[in-house]
Amino acid sequence: MHDVFVLYNHPDRPQEFDAHYRDVHSPLVNELPKLREFTWGKPSEDDRSYYVVARLTYDSAADAAESMASPAGQKSVDDLANFAGAGVTVLNTTRAG
Amino acid sequence: MHDVFVLYNHPDRPQEFDAHYRDVHSPLVNELPKLREFTWGKPSEDDRSYYVVARLTYDSAADAAESMASPAGQKSVDDLANFAGAGVTVLNTTRAG
Repeated sequence: MHDVFVLYNHPDRPQEFDAHYRDVHSPLVNELPKLREFTWGKPSEDDRSYYVVARLTYDSAADAAESMASPAGQKSVDDLANFAGAGVTVLNTTRAG
Repeated sequence: MHDVFVLYNHPDRPQEFDAHYRDVHSPLVNELPKLREFTWGKPSEDDRSYYVVARLTYDSAADAAESMASPAGQKSVDDLANFAGAGVTVLNTTRAG
């Protein structure tokens, strides 16, 4: 299995981020081909490093790469510019255990 | 569902980290009460922010807190001092989607 972890920095305008993430970005992610599971949440207030953590799970690194290179993948990545200007860390991680 | 994400900074001695993580730390994590799923992996070399990403999944935030407060939880947290001196970020994240 292969996880793409997406760690979002704290936005300047959290309410706008939340609305865009829920109403625009999440639906785009759910259209990604070969995606097996998509989960996201906000770390507790004790953990201020990141605002949102998302996980996109695929069967393999190859599937993840193909998905991200698809039109839906490109649309999803392009959408980051619309709400994630504070920055984002993407970790492509094939499971070892 | 509730995920505890553990992001490990790059260690000074990767081989020692790997051996300890595989042979000592992972078995300790697998003894945690109420743990539903434990996965871990190394981000690809393009993603240098962190060396290892682990995910401990529980049914709820309460289960995660109880698990971490248990003797096995304390033992697991105490073990970080034995191999994760480069630093670790822990994100307690209840799923919103």
